[in-house]
Amino acid sequence: MTRTETEIASLGEFGLIDHLTKDAKIKNTSTIKGVGDDAAVLRYADKETLVTTDLLLEGIHFDLTYCPLKHLGYKAAVVNFSDIYAMNGTPRQITVSIGVSKRFTVEHIEELYAGIKLACEIYGVDMVGGDTSASVTGLIISITCMGEAEKGEVVYRSGARDTDLICVSGDLGAAYMGLQLLERERTVSKQDGEDFRPAFEGKEYILERQLKPEARRDVVEELRSIGVRPTAMMDVSDGLSSELLHICKASNVGCRIYEERIPIDYQTACMAEEFGMNLVTAALNGGEDYELLFTVPLVDHEKVAAMKTAKIIGRITRPELGACMESRDGNELPIRAQGWNAFTEE
Amino acid sequence: MTRTETEIASLGEFGLIDHLTKDAKIKNTSTIKGVGDDAAVLRYADKETLVTTDLLLEGIHFDLTYCPLKHLGYKAAVVNFSDIYAMNGTPRQITVSIGVSKRFTVEHIEELYAGIKLACEIYGVDMVGGDTSASVTGLIISITCMGEAEKGEVVYRSGARDTDLICVSGDLGAAYMGLQLLERERTVSKQDGEDFRPAFEGKEYILERQLKPEARRDVVEELRSIGVRPTAMMDVSDGLSSELLHICKASNVGCRIYEERIPIDYQTACMAEEFGMNLVTAALNGGEDYELLFTVPLVDHEKVAAMKTAKIIGRITRPELGACMESRDGNELPIRAQGWNAFTEE
Repeated sequence: MTRTETEIASLGEFGLIDHLTKDAKIKNTSTIKGVGDDAAVLRYADKETLVTTDLLLEGIHFDLTYCPLKHLGYKAAVVNFSDIYAMNGTPRQITVSIGVSKRFTVEHIEELYAGIKLACEIYGVDMVGGDTSASVTGLIISITCMGEAEKGEVVYRSGARDTDLICVSGDLGAAYMGLQLLERERTVSKQDGEDFRPAFEGKEYILERQLKPEARRDVVEELRSIGVRPTAMMDVSDGLSSELLHICKASNVGCRIYEERIPIDYQTACMAEEFGMNLVTAALNGGEDYELLFTVPLVDHEKVAAMKTAKIIGRITRPELGACMESRDGNELPIRAQGWNAFTEE
Repeated sequence: MTRTETEIASLGEFGLIDHLTKDAKIKNTSTIKGVGDDAAVLRYADKETLVTTDLLLEGIHFDLTYCPLKHLGYKAAVVNFSDIYAMNGTPRQITVSIGVSKRFTVEHIEELYAGIKLACEIYGVDMVGGDTSASVTGLIISITCMGEAEKGEVVYRSGARDTDLICVSGDLGAAYMGLQLLERERTVSKQDGEDFRPAFEGKEYILERQLKPEARRDVVEELRSIGVRPTAMMDVSDGLSSELLHICKASNVGCRIYEERIPIDYQTACMAEEFGMNLVTAALNGGEDYELLFTVPLVDHEKVAAMKTAKIIGRITRPELGACMESRDGNELPIRAQGWNAFTEE
């Protein structure tokens, strides 16, 4: 700690939370009372209230050797917003609880909050509460996000029907390849010591996808503007395969997607080649893309085919046909969940 | 781990959360969709929505050497319910996120959830979501609670006015003395090894106050039944002194309480004497009582004086008179926040 940095103990638990939230301005009419009482007070008249929560732990979900605190804060907020958009809703409020060990200064926590606040600013969300605590080891971030949807407009995972089209926004696998790159450079940096310069040139896109993902508000808005309501929707946080299987299970349907239609960015492809990895496997099973996966009735084919933010990758089938992918050479491959499992990773 | 215990990795992240929540039954009409999608869906038509959150960390907020997991789960839920009652609301839903290291088995987590579920059962609350993750060290519990209040019935900290009566429910300092007892017995148990038998007889009340606190739903209900609406209210989680100062600051008032009126249980008094501690200091500054501190207009004096669940301990004054306590011998002592600060504790 340098002389200009501030020990958290000097502010105390209440001092810190006051300090971090004192300049919070309320943006939403549904926020009646934010930080500063036993609970926040919200008013969701005539709307459905959506609630989602996410726990991020240092050493499990993030590594501060390559993830700047401001980016981490931004991402921690955005992944929650993504869950609300995936219900066809709009995020409105978050609560933020953090646990910090003694190696963090007030300035560190300010950086983290700067990222959270920036995400709130961009997505029009109010920070309405939270909790700050000491932790024995490392940084812990728990965010809960509340949002709203018009009555009857909530889109669940369970609404997909036979013949529906399967669509996905953006491109897949980039966040995963960004993580592989960061991991490699970290290893190299340990070997090379002070002479180390990370080899990130021309790989900015995949890094940004890993370090500073966005929630696809634009997709939800485009769907509304073209008058299409998805039958099922979720965000791609654990990998396309895993999420497709969730929709198939919840909706009691099968699915058939086409390898050649899976959207993959050029940088993702280059990186996979550099690592000698199977590109499609990375796109199917790499997590943290935060794209939206959704199904629409066949009758909306023309409208969704013309969408800017998403493309059609397959169709929903009867359950007995299972979940499969047709490869470029016409073979049929079963879709398996190989999503990330924090309990078995070493 | 014995042969009958189950490694968490054998179920995986999704398996575990499914396993823990599969028998959840929805109790509230405001719960439209619970566990199993990107977000829970709630409907709070014509009501205010209340949201509070709490992060509990092993080694900071609890010690598993004397806190059974089931009790811990119960307490983790109840402290959130307490915050909702403190707003004059009714808790309806919680989300539960936990981080668990490899030393925990599926059976351990089931115990923790059994406590959370029991609290939900008793208080009529639905578990609607959450997240289960590996952690590097120790157990992490993050609970967010949603509740409702009739429009215009929310009670803030900021509504206390000069001449209002100050009331507190139950008794104070017991949870703190329970913690002191548990800490002492833990130290003795380390010295005595296998011959150790904890000396808990006749101290059941203070232990229960520490290990299995209740939220004061009955107080909120009694206030409603006698037609008294508090002007300000909060729960006593950090100690009476600290909470009184919060109300004084938020309401821009002073206060005067009377030492002889502070409610203290016999077991608390005995324990303080055994430890040679100042009893009033313990009652004023000991945390985790989860009693309700509230103020009512002077005109309601007769009604609150007859309350079963709470008693009058003082009155609100003009701000320039400050916050003070009149001691038994008639001296005036300033009230200072000496509540627990996790950042400075060693």
